[in-house]
Amino acid sequence: MHSNEIQNKLKNPIRHAKITSNMSVDQLVREFDGCAFGAGRLAEAVDIYCEMLTENTTKFFGLAGAMVPAGMRSIVADLIRDGYIDVLVTTGANMVHDIVESLELHHYKGTDVTNDVELKNEEINRIYDVFLPEHHFTNFEEKMQLILGKLSKDTISIRELLTYIGKRLEDDNSILKSAADMEVPVYCPAIQDSIIGLQAWLYKESNPINVDAFADMHEFIDICFEAEKAGAMLIGGGVPKNYIFQSMLVTPGEFDYAIQLTMDTPETGGLSGATLDEARSWGKVGETARSVTVYGDATITLPIIVAAMRSRLNY
Amino acid sequence: MHSNEIQNKLKNPIRHAKITSNMSVDQLVREFDGCAFGAGRLAEAVDIYCEMLTENTTKFFGLAGAMVPAGMRSIVADLIRDGYIDVLVTTGANMVHDIVESLELHHYKGTDVTNDVELKNEEINRIYDVFLPEHHFTNFEEKMQLILGKLSKDTISIRELLTYIGKRLEDDNSILKSAADMEVPVYCPAIQDSIIGLQAWLYKESNPINVDAFADMHEFIDICFEAEKAGAMLIGGGVPKNYIFQSMLVTPGEFDYAIQLTMDTPETGGLSGATLDEARSWGKVGETARSVTVYGDATITLPIIVAAMRSRLNY
Amino acid sequence: MHSNEIQNKLKNPIRHAKITSNMSVDQLVREFDGCAFGAGRLAEAVDIYCEMLTENTTKFFGLAGAMVPAGMRSIVADLIRDGYIDVLVTTGANMVHDIVESLELHHYKGTDVTNDVELKNEEINRIYDVFLPEHHFTNFEEKMQLILGKLSKDTISIRELLTYIGKRLEDDNSILKSAADMEVPVYCPAIQDSIIGLQAWLYKESNPINVDAFADMHEFIDICFEAEKAGAMLIGGGVPKNYIFQSMLVTPGEFDYAIQLTMDTPETGGLSGATLDEARSWGKVGETARSVTVYGDATITLPIIVAAMRSRLNY
Amino acid sequence: MHSNEIQNKLKNPIRHAKITSNMSVDQLVREFDGCAFGAGRLAEAVDIYCEMLTENTTKFFGLAGAMVPAGMRSIVADLIRDGYIDVLVTTGANMVHDIVESLELHHYKGTDVTNDVELKNEEINRIYDVFLPEHHFTNFEEKMQLILGKLSKDTISIRELLTYIGKRLEDDNSILKSAADMEVPVYCPAIQDSIIGLQAWLYKESNPINVDAFADMHEFIDICFEAEKAGAMLIGGGVPKNYIFQSMLVTPGEFDYAIQLTMDTPETGGLSGATLDEARSWGKVGETARSVTVYGDATITLPIIVAAMRSRLNY
Repeated sequence: MHSNEIQNKLKNPIRHAKITSNMSVDQLVREFDGCAFGAGRLAEAVDIYCEMLTENTTKFFGLAGAMVPAGMRSIVADLIRDGYIDVLVTTGANMVHDIVESLELHHYKGTDVTNDVELKNEEINRIYDVFLPEHHFTNFEEKMQLILGKLSKDTISIRELLTYIGKRLEDDNSILKSAADMEVPVYCPAIQDSIIGLQAWLYKESNPINVDAFADMHEFIDICFEAEKAGAMLIGGGVPKNYIFQSMLVTPGEFDYAIQLTMDTPETGGLSGATLDEARSWGKVGETARSVTVYGDATITLPIIVAAMRSRLNY
Repeated sequence: MHSNEIQNKLKNPIRHAKITSNMSVDQLVREFDGCAFGAGRLAEAVDIYCEMLTENTTKFFGLAGAMVPAGMRSIVADLIRDGYIDVLVTTGANMVHDIVESLELHHYKGTDVTNDVELKNEEINRIYDVFLPEHHFTNFEEKMQLILGKLSKDTISIRELLTYIGKRLEDDNSILKSAADMEVPVYCPAIQDSIIGLQAWLYKESNPINVDAFADMHEFIDICFEAEKAGAMLIGGGVPKNYIFQSMLVTPGEFDYAIQLTMDTPETGGLSGATLDEARSWGKVGETARSVTVYGDATITLPIIVAAMRSRLNY
Repeated sequence: MHSNEIQNKLKNPIRHAKITSNMSVDQLVREFDGCAFGAGRLAEAVDIYCEMLTENTTKFFGLAGAMVPAGMRSIVADLIRDGYIDVLVTTGANMVHDIVESLELHHYKGTDVTNDVELKNEEINRIYDVFLPEHHFTNFEEKMQLILGKLSKDTISIRELLTYIGKRLEDDNSILKSAADMEVPVYCPAIQDSIIGLQAWLYKESNPINVDAFADMHEFIDICFEAEKAGAMLIGGGVPKNYIFQSMLVTPGEFDYAIQLTMDTPETGGLSGATLDEARSWGKVGETARSVTVYGDATITLPIIVAAMRSRLNY
Repeated sequence: MHSNEIQNKLKNPIRHAKITSNMSVDQLVREFDGCAFGAGRLAEAVDIYCEMLTENTTKFFGLAGAMVPAGMRSIVADLIRDGYIDVLVTTGANMVHDIVESLELHHYKGTDVTNDVELKNEEINRIYDVFLPEHHFTNFEEKMQLILGKLSKDTISIRELLTYIGKRLEDDNSILKSAADMEVPVYCPAIQDSIIGLQAWLYKESNPINVDAFADMHEFIDICFEAEKAGAMLIGGGVPKNYIFQSMLVTPGEFDYAIQLTMDTPETGGLSGATLDEARSWGKVGETARSVTVYGDATITLPIIVAAMRSRLNY
């Protein structure tokens, strides 16, 4: 920074947050706006997200982590239904748990302080402090084999398969169904790395099915090519973050907006924790793009950002 | 856990959070109540905090980290003024920055992506993304030397010194002044490890002053002895956490409530990241005490907890 | 634990590590054996790894993170060549950087304290403190298009594609070539999530190629079925960790040995940071399996473990 | 960076580490020298540490965390005895556990996966995976009351008190005794925040004792003033880090060398995780000083650095 840029920063004193009874989430975030550290970053994320959603932006949403088991399913489904997500890239696991819930099978609030061998004996699978009865996967298997059995063609892309599954779910709170209803494409590059993958293996043992790993790339890259502006809301890192960003390497464009909500820090050099500045060196994020990383548990920060955004955009 | 305890957990399905426009912070936290991971822990922290504040509890508040520079000063001062803190244990740094602000000298919202040698040349000290002009410390020095010069006795305790300073500040938003006004004792075991310490050194070069490091322990431990119930809200770890907890080693009691807001995890074995369960093995936290750790940036989680608590306690 | 189990722990006093000049890595690890926290876990990892390698174990190796750019390529290639890896599951990125190096194109030691827009203008891509000239990808493209162009069949699996590429590299330090030479299968479930994916897209624009995402699962699960004992060395989390573990959900077996080297902690509930105990509730890791997580930068911990293992196994 | 600085980085290709049987720790670190991420930083730390120890440097050592319970006591004691530490700043807890060990009372290797209420019933205190029988503190109390009872003067400084205690221990592996023997001053700004503090309180209930909190600052700052060059090896953050650095605010000098071994990252803004660059803006670390932060568990990284240093300095 130049000297005058540095001195300019001295025009913005920290404003100490005032907390009042019954304040709204948006009012809280406006208090955060004058604060530093995580609070300041969270306020900035809301600003960027609102601008990204009101400009003519193609809105990418990357969903990693175990967000569905943790209770974040409706938030994502509602964002899709309300037009705030144009392209969803996610992990197989989030889709598995979305399908499980759509079968009216629940995840349960357990505890992380437990004996996992006892849990196994009780036939309960644990995801941190979430308990999931093993027999839910029996119902999941029935549903999946039924769905796969009705596929009319042998060779499809992963996105097509997920749209096909979404259309066959009967739960409007489902992410996959919401996406199918709203014609939002769902990409899942590592789909075989999930219980959907295991079901596909089981099906494939006795039936022809060919899901072409690279088939989605043409349409995905086309979406990037055609975007007037591009924005990315990244929940966690992993495959969704990289897949969303890498497409810009072969298009002339760059992301104009990028927000990442993560607990991963840059120090170990992995892509999940890489800063959004690092992405500028690659041309994934634009030189003048607005971007911010909010370090923290996304089960806390995503709902706050969405609540404040909904207040501001009156929806 | 016994088998029936495990099976009982299967009575509480995860409820997926619904986010609406203009929802209040308390409503958001009530949505978190059905969620897992950080969201679930945050909701539990609000429950515990409200119970702790409404029971006949002696309320300890541990304040580590750079919370004052980040904009959290008023939150703490208001908690004191409203009777939600009975005993404050903090770091010297937070008190230094509180005094600086009380002199109408600001901290500024800078950036963490910068060249620190340039900052030094501009005489700006950096605290992550907070900028603090070096010359503020000149005013701080004047004030401190003036205050120290009027001490009527040579030998005092750290708590007495902080009360004495608090009384001489003229800013109702000050943590130290709020504590002095409300007769809330402020303990700061490592006071020499701060710029207050450097000022005391400067003063001591030509004036007699003796601040007895162990003088506060008698009254601090008496407070613990006399507590009907004891509750601890811990912001960060460090000295405040340990000092609050260790007193219970020499009293028959234990903490009945404990909440910690931290980014430190247990794996490196330090006390800052130690679980509240570990504290049970020492008898610091009671066997049946309610406790929860919220992992995340306290500049985000503390304001949320305080906002929800204020809504619930109508204040 | 039962009372006697607890009391039994009091038979193993902490032995304070003694450090001497010229001590070997193995001697250091033996000193760690008497220590706690990370040092103790690292010593345990070496014990488990040596047992896993000397028993009749099918040895899975999960490689996430940016280990190749960081300089860990030869370690993995040598483990393959020496028979210490039977099955490799990795990310596309690690394979991209392995191929780049095999073209005698280097990664460079840069810095993480930099201006990424300047880097972009210099056509340098940054991976934390590693610099990679953008034009290396031009050579990579030529090589990849050449290789893809010689594919004799249109429909292959990801594993077949990686073997095919590995055979066409001329660098014995290459992970892919070592795997091809040693007939070690390399699985990469998210291959399209990498620059290999972008090259496949480019090729596919004008040539027929169909890489079946689920084609590898049959042989992968067969390996799991046939394993007398199974062991997993997991570098980072991500897709490799989940893919290796999930296969055990459809086989009667479980992992008998599991080691993970990671910086991810369990608190946010994602699979990367999930404990190996959590994996027991799912039946991925066996009830009586030996397992340990070493929290720390794998560029430090993996070489230590390998050096100590090589000393103990005399190889 | 200027363009030529950036381009200059492209002269140092990453060298992929080669691991051999029976290699020494120093050889391993030399392999790390060509690597990036944590491995590269660790190699740089060894370089800086060796230069710092061979130049005419006043050598500060900051010891936070629970390093003594974890088995790191002899490493620190030996560094003192061999002249590699001139000034030690530490926490009360590390000194408590050092004294406990000097009474031939052990810490034990337990487990972090346990029920802390059961441990409490067995009268065992837990420090992550270290178990400490509660009755050790009875012996500790006897020893401390005996030592305090023989104090010849009522008013002493913390450093004097620790020297006094050190002289009365009969264990050459003790940090406190080694420091007393070698006339290395030990500073412990938050001494009352430890069980030594509780013992002082107990003693003070019926005996006069006055430990002046600010008494040590004169001599500590004098050491800083007189240092030709100054170097800091910081294990963890906390009070020791800040206390070592802040002294430079009132002296004309700055640290010429600084190494920190920590798991704390900068993102939450606390001093423990603050970068060493941030310290440059304050003038704590010099503009041209050599500094590096190694992110990782110090029970692993400290022994490696010490082993490599001892090999290089032939001692």
